[in-house]
Amino acid sequence: MSLLINPLTTLISVKHVHGGRQSKSKTRISSLLTKQDQNPISPPFDFRRYTLDKAESVNRALAAAVEMKEPLKINESMRYSLLAGGKRVRPMLCIAACELVGGDESTALPAACAVEMIHTMSLMHDDLPCMDNDALRRGKPTNHRVFGEEVAVLAGDALLSLAFEHVAAATRGAAAERVVRVLGELARSIGAEGLVAGQVVDICSEGMAEVGLEHLEFIHHHKTAALLEGSVVLGAILGGGDEDEVAKLRKFAKCIGLLFQVVDDVLDVTKSSAELGKTAGKDLVADKTTYPKLLGIQRSKELAEELNREAQEQLLQFHPQKAAPLIALANYIAYRDN
Amino acid sequence: MSLLINPLTTLISVKHVHGGRQSKSKTRISSLLTKQDQNPISPPFDFRRYTLDKAESVNRALAAAVEMKEPLKINESMRYSLLAGGKRVRPMLCIAACELVGGDESTALPAACAVEMIHTMSLMHDDLPCMDNDALRRGKPTNHRVFGEEVAVLAGDALLSLAFEHVAAATRGAAAERVVRVLGELARSIGAEGLVAGQVVDICSEGMAEVGLEHLEFIHHHKTAALLEGSVVLGAILGGGDEDEVAKLRKFAKCIGLLFQVVDDVLDVTKSSAELGKTAGKDLVADKTTYPKLLGIQRSKELAEELNREAQEQLLQFHPQKAAPLIALANYIAYRDN
Repeated sequence: MSLLINPLTTLISVKHVHGGRQSKSKTRISSLLTKQDQNPISPPFDFRRYTLDKAESVNRALAAAVEMKEPLKINESMRYSLLAGGKRVRPMLCIAACELVGGDESTALPAACAVEMIHTMSLMHDDLPCMDNDALRRGKPTNHRVFGEEVAVLAGDALLSLAFEHVAAATRGAAAERVVRVLGELARSIGAEGLVAGQVVDICSEGMAEVGLEHLEFIHHHKTAALLEGSVVLGAILGGGDEDEVAKLRKFAKCIGLLFQVVDDVLDVTKSSAELGKTAGKDLVADKTTYPKLLGIQRSKELAEELNREAQEQLLQFHPQKAAPLIALANYIAYRDN
Repeated sequence: MSLLINPLTTLISVKHVHGGRQSKSKTRISSLLTKQDQNPISPPFDFRRYTLDKAESVNRALAAAVEMKEPLKINESMRYSLLAGGKRVRPMLCIAACELVGGDESTALPAACAVEMIHTMSLMHDDLPCMDNDALRRGKPTNHRVFGEEVAVLAGDALLSLAFEHVAAATRGAAAERVVRVLGELARSIGAEGLVAGQVVDICSEGMAEVGLEHLEFIHHHKTAALLEGSVVLGAILGGGDEDEVAKLRKFAKCIGLLFQVVDDVLDVTKSSAELGKTAGKDLVADKTTYPKLLGIQRSKELAEELNREAQEQLLQFHPQKAAPLIALANYIAYRDN
């Protein structure tokens, strides 16, 4: 990926990697960028710089949020997984949504950390022997392999509660009513109507003969999309977005949430463990229903493009320069390699 | 226990069961009740009616908070443990503290449900094979024995997030600033500075030769007292308590939190599994350091009395009639049979 990118060139250059459908996609997406193209003085958007800056803010805030203090074992375990160098996609979505509606990065930062804490704890519990029994995560041994199962369970619980504590205690620059709403949204994205619902149905579906597209979408809407939706919506609320802006960004997030999972499924069958930094091909081993299994790899990739387009259509009402980070993040999710 | 009780007679009658130290305790506690004694028209406090009324409110609210809907398995698992007929001590403390500072039961009810959800999820995770590997809880097979380990982990996660969602979405009659503060307090009572810290240190201490009183108090201040403290403080904040009232009630809660664990340890060595509704004697089997092991049973009972007295001293500034529920709850915690 080039160092200096505007959304259009990002799309095209990354598109090229996947090959074959370049011109059609160019036509589709270029229509979204008309306003920016009409403004010759708008500077190109440097996506790489943006992601490095935001990841640095988030990593610094995460490290400060979980200090190395007594009891050392639990904090060490939390830090081990939290600071293992994830891509920080969710925090970036949160911050970008906040900035898009006129808020500051600092207002969204505690919520951005919270969604990463939730994401990390869901991986820690998902990797447990009684769940996926996974050995490798983000290129390192899984938490329970290092700290033991009981500590991995408890460190996950601690991260889950820390997410709420951090938002409640550290958020500045937003009215208390918005913070309460954000805490409710965050909670809903996790529980029996969110992430956990998706995980349970996913587990119960393994080895099932008849799993259709609707069933698969239920799993992914909950297991992956709910927290990605939460990430964007939290940022939009904290940034002071009005109801229409929050609704548009929620729809954007629903699309990229599903997009994220479609791409994940494709990567699981097309990449190696070394390339992914986690165990590849495990969906096949677990006999999981995935998009490639139901639709084939080519149609899955087309679905990803459609979802990306629908997502970006939600951003048309915003100033293109301000929307550039979310457009680039959507493209990144669509065309990432791991 | 008689049906109609005022705090003084509660104390004396229950005291009698433990025998031997009646007159000394009567002197200690009667001083706390002077104001009430001076008011001959204040009606006696019916503790049994109070606990039945509050438990009914809480049970109804808990059942409504976790509906039987898709995915059924996760909601069924959550309801199985949540509606298994616990004593609802934490919700009652929350409601009583709210009412004591002038708030309504309805304002505290979502937070009261939340602390019970947290308590339940901590038991579910504590009972897992990788932790205490327990078979019996509240007189029924433990959650993972019925629903499987993976569902028990996830249902615990879902209850944890539901606790926050419920407070954020359902609390009425309190300013948003107070709700944010309450959500922060609730989270702090759980995580790496609360319940989870206590559990981790507890697990790491099993079989350790040298565990002193200070170490034991760290465990219990976190594992048990933190959430009991949270329960009381949440109610006090939501009820509109001022800083002095919240501080007094926090100290009350810290004392009864430790009291609760001292009594739990004593019950573990003096009662049968059938009487407790959970596996008795398991502290001995796990070679855990407990108050009876460190201090002996008699001195542990004396410590319980001292903690109860210190707790009740914090309530002296409140009108005795209004403080009656918390006094009775403290006595109940001190002199319960299971």
